[in-house]
Amino acid sequence: MRRKHNIRVAGSILSHTVPLRVRFSEVDSMRVVWHGEYVRYFEDGREAFGEHYAGFSYPEIYASGYTTPIVELHVDYKLPLRIADRAIVETRYIPTEAAKICFEYTVRRAADNAVVATGTSTQVFVNEAGQLELTIPEFFRKWQQRWNVR
Amino acid sequence: MRRKHNIRVAGSILSHTVPLRVRFSEVDSMRVVWHGEYVRYFEDGREAFGEHYAGFSYPEIYASGYTTPIVELHVDYKLPLRIADRAIVETRYIPTEAAKICFEYTVRRAADNAVVATGTSTQVFVNEAGQLELTIPEFFRKWQQRWNVR
Amino acid sequence: MRRKHNIRVAGSILSHTVPLRVRFSEVDSMRVVWHGEYVRYFEDGREAFGEHYAGFSYPEIYASGYTTPIVELHVDYKLPLRIADRAIVETRYIPTEAAKICFEYTVRRAADNAVVATGTSTQVFVNEAGQLELTIPEFFRKWQQRWNVR
Amino acid sequence: MRRKHNIRVAGSILSHTVPLRVRFSEVDSMRVVWHGEYVRYFEDGREAFGEHYAGFSYPEIYASGYTTPIVELHVDYKLPLRIADRAIVETRYIPTEAAKICFEYTVRRAADNAVVATGTSTQVFVNEAGQLELTIPEFFRKWQQRWNVR
Repeated sequence: MRRKHNIRVAGSILSHTVPLRVRFSEVDSMRVVWHGEYVRYFEDGREAFGEHYAGFSYPEIYASGYTTPIVELHVDYKLPLRIADRAIVETRYIPTEAAKICFEYTVRRAADNAVVATGTSTQVFVNEAGQLELTIPEFFRKWQQRWNVR
Repeated sequence: MRRKHNIRVAGSILSHTVPLRVRFSEVDSMRVVWHGEYVRYFEDGREAFGEHYAGFSYPEIYASGYTTPIVELHVDYKLPLRIADRAIVETRYIPTEAAKICFEYTVRRAADNAVVATGTSTQVFVNEAGQLELTIPEFFRKWQQRWNVR
Repeated sequence: MRRKHNIRVAGSILSHTVPLRVRFSEVDSMRVVWHGEYVRYFEDGREAFGEHYAGFSYPEIYASGYTTPIVELHVDYKLPLRIADRAIVETRYIPTEAAKICFEYTVRRAADNAVVATGTSTQVFVNEAGQLELTIPEFFRKWQQRWNVR
Repeated sequence: MRRKHNIRVAGSILSHTVPLRVRFSEVDSMRVVWHGEYVRYFEDGREAFGEHYAGFSYPEIYASGYTTPIVELHVDYKLPLRIADRAIVETRYIPTEAAKICFEYTVRRAADNAVVATGTSTQVFVNEAGQLELTIPEFFRKWQQRWNVR
């Protein structure tokens, strides 16, 4: 139903998981995590992914002269998370031939491994002149080669 | 490309706009509004819509014995908003025969009316026992009749 | 009980009020506004103050080559705000001879004018080299003269 | 300079530390952590403290029939935290004979142990009727005895 990333696997599947614990401030008046907080959970996953697969963290991207703004975001909510719940965010890199960075996310409740939310994000490359890059930047080509992904 | 709500117009088109001003705390280190803030902008739009079209505000929904959690959210980012920018959120009710509440959003920059983001959300009805309602609750039928929408 | 700013009135009292409406996302699981949201309410007040008293908005401060980080913040919570409540933030400039910017805040519930929270903030001037300015910058002297405050 | 909690040590000093990593979304356009995020860091510290010293977590407090709203908050900012910085929040319970819960916080940068912020919070007890408790509730007396603190 939702937008499917045009997947073309070429090599490894890169995936990383990070644990989280629901904070008091993230819970709304319905006593479940406010739906907007999942954007932060996905970002937690993406940041941990970037730290794990060296060459792809925020500082490394900026040092290369690019920014990678999000141009599309999708979230499907399956089950609520409640105060003090523990969860696990899995972040998967989705290969694409376009000059884009695509991720899929799965948030699971730690207690029973139930899927509470899934989602996708798409990022593009913007150069120092503020222009959209239509070809994959050199630093990202190297990262793809290093980790054997397209 | 993104999920299209199954639209079946039956009566009026309900739409409402609300102005906003970018807050310092909403701007990220790239000096543009952080992408997660748009979830809040859409909610601002939805809350103003619910106040405008009487019978559909948060207090009125809860008084009816239902909650309306978000089950799907999509955002397409077109242009950045920057500090102190003013913008306008348009929220449109998308009629559906299902027991769902569907909205479309358009965020425009006030200075030049350029579209900076669009999006959709889908909500369902959950009763006081915590169960998903498969038929449209009476209070919402009345709201639809009052405003001549399906 | 709390820190009292060393007040030395020299000229006008500058004060500005801005209305706000409690958002769904600001309310916590106790069904009152989460205490951290008041930091944002104070910032809303400060930004509106800076727009009103020309020469003191964020863009103008940055254009002058300074940043004005907050070095101290205090909040006293008196009464809760609840979902859909409307409130008014009053922001008062507190004159000081030091190279600091001091504000006092009062948040009132619109329905009955009851004080729900008060607070103070202190900002300093940091120059483009990242160093603390020990004397009042020229742009701020001019602003003080323009509005007849110390 | 700031409000000093009226300290009367009677037994152990209870202290707990929790690590954190600065998130992209917490950094503002000055490329430092936005000052309001420290309220969340303090809450992270307080929640971890409550989990560590059994009998004092949010679920346990609510099960006892009380809520413990924050009535006073103070933050002193010493140094900025930047993107991807790691930090440590130390939360110390400050004994008092009043029907209050007082904490002190110290946030240190992990890289060099430099103090980046300190703060205090005061909470009160509110019973199920929504009234302020003027005497220390039984569940909290037991917690104090268990951990040998006043």
